Amino acid sequence: MSKSYRVAILGATGAVGQELLELLENRNFPVSDLRLLASERSAGRTLPFQGENLPVEAVSEKAFENADLVLASAGGSISKTWAPKAVAAGAVVIDNSSAFRMNPEVPLVVPEVNPEAAANHKGIIANPNCTTILMTVAVWPLHKVSPVQRLVAATYQSASGAGAKAMEEVKIQASAILEGKQPVAEVFPYPLAFNVFPHNTPLNEFGYCEEEMKMVNETRKIFGSQDIRITATCVRVPVLRSHSEAINLEFEVPFSPEKAREVLSQAPGVKLVEDWKANHFPMPIEATGRDEVLVGRIRQDISNSCGLELWLCGDQVRKGAALNAIQIAELLVAKNLLKGAVAVSH
Amino acid sequence: MSKSYRVAILGATGAVGQELLELLENRNFPVSDLRLLASERSAGRTLPFQGENLPVEAVSEKAFENADLVLASAGGSISKTWAPKAVAAGAVVIDNSSAFRMNPEVPLVVPEVNPEAAANHKGIIANPNCTTILMTVAVWPLHKVSPVQRLVAATYQSASGAGAKAMEEVKIQASAILEGKQPVAEVFPYPLAFNVFPHNTPLNEFGYCEEEMKMVNETRKIFGSQDIRITATCVRVPVLRSHSEAINLEFEVPFSPEKAREVLSQAPGVKLVEDWKANHFPMPIEATGRDEVLVGRIRQDISNSCGLELWLCGDQVRKGAALNAIQIAELLVAKNLLKGAVAVSH
Repeated sequence: MSKSYRVAILGATGAVGQELLELLENRNFPVSDLRLLASERSAGRTLPFQGENLPVEAVSEKAFENADLVLASAGGSISKTWAPKAVAAGAVVIDNSSAFRMNPEVPLVVPEVNPEAAANHKGIIANPNCTTILMTVAVWPLHKVSPVQRLVAATYQSASGAGAKAMEEVKIQASAILEGKQPVAEVFPYPLAFNVFPHNTPLNEFGYCEEEMKMVNETRKIFGSQDIRITATCVRVPVLRSHSEAINLEFEVPFSPEKAREVLSQAPGVKLVEDWKANHFPMPIEATGRDEVLVGRIRQDISNSCGLELWLCGDQVRKGAALNAIQIAELLVAKNLLKGAVAVSH
Repeated sequence: MSKSYRVAILGATGAVGQELLELLENRNFPVSDLRLLASERSAGRTLPFQGENLPVEAVSEKAFENADLVLASAGGSISKTWAPKAVAAGAVVIDNSSAFRMNPEVPLVVPEVNPEAAANHKGIIANPNCTTILMTVAVWPLHKVSPVQRLVAATYQSASGAGAKAMEEVKIQASAILEGKQPVAEVFPYPLAFNVFPHNTPLNEFGYCEEEMKMVNETRKIFGSQDIRITATCVRVPVLRSHSEAINLEFEVPFSPEKAREVLSQAPGVKLVEDWKANHFPMPIEATGRDEVLVGRIRQDISNSCGLELWLCGDQVRKGAALNAIQIAELLVAKNLLKGAVAVSH
């Protein structure tokens, strides 16, 4: 007896919001009613869903009345304000912001890694940081075989991580540079077209930026392992969409590349991309629009007998955000953990 | 009593060749005669030097007659053919290709690191790989204080590393993408505009590409330390010029970021770029055209009490290639190790 659900998307007009909308439709999520919520500024617009044009409403307390599921992707302060109200109204909130991720009462879930955590929610389930999701999907299958002791990451993060406006800005900057003009930076602090720079999130007293600390702390929480030692250097690159990561792993004992390949070729959410003869490995342009995290260049680290090197790319907007949230929702549906109503067959 | 020298540039029309020409002029290298050598294809062109237009000649054995110094930057196979002939003709060859770098009879020199090695040449001195030069300039001052035990690098390498044509290709690809067209890749195996991919040099049986092994083997030779354990992931990014590198260092004992900053602020060829409040660190667009390697984001590695993280950018065509070669030549001049003739004052 299948149920269907009243869903609200908070932040429907953003890059992730639109991806959520597309995935709800494409994955046939059992939606009986869908409300698109955004700021006052976006209210009045319409967005297409299942052949209809749905209106975008300004978020308000009333908007969550009767909602079974709220998919929130409108930034931390918006989530802090509205998620508790949505929960009070009886909804389960899957929140894509960083607002609740490290709250010990809030599960932080990557369905390929810790699906069981989702059941222990108290109304809010947090969707991890994009870079962290992509990394955990690729590293968890190896960690299960032999616990990772230490992880050194360097990221190559696309403009999409900063939203649709950032993607547009990079294109405008590239155009300007190609015409011999000075690029203008507004979303990012520096021009990103034909440039790279360390991730522009606030730095802590130890010199790590927020994005790097998310990779450290969220990975530990998702893996349920406070022992794993992680360091990261997060860098923006002029790619429109999909992040890449160079990952150096240290195990307690040697982990052969052959074994890693065998493990990863069967891992959920992972696709091995390794054509050594053609020098063809994961690339962001090939990861874009795909559900899987592409993993390749798996090598024994020649500087460490217990080390492995790997390279991954994943669609930050999709698996790094919207898809992961939808997968969490699907988990809740499968375990009958959402209210909903028995669907009436048409 | 100053001397001046008969210089030949082999590969004068390439990106590095043109930079060599510019640096010879700007640094007032004591040139009495300059011959520009290239392939048959480029012969007949002229290039400006000190207000004159010098002809480009096809390389031939005659071209090296009477040369005191040959600056070669025309690729490995050209160097293998012509460098021994130039040496036989009495010249010292500073070779920018990889042809002789690992030859135990050939010094591999970064003037800020191992200037003393230059004196032991037998006619050929090798200029290291660009990525390696930039890294060694930044890491050597720390290594001298406390030997580096292990180094994990991830690179962000610009198109210029593959020459002037590659830079042009990236621009043409970016234009095409901005116009909604398919980008065409000819110099690189895959489109680089708005994309990144692992460095497209041949892979060895352990899955490391040539560029990565250059970083490993050349750094060991330059540092005179076969013990230092190095691993690298080399990646192309859509930047026109200047390479960036995320470097994770392991020492035997803790190395405080404050001490590292103190050491690097006095290191030759290094410029610290660290404005933590403005989130302003080295960027390739700011490294381009500069002599120094820009270093920043120096942090204690939170995953390793004896670890340091740092980020660097350097102009691959300048310090990564042409400037380093000119500095080697200047070293030879300073030590009176080049033939030359007493300069006649004008």
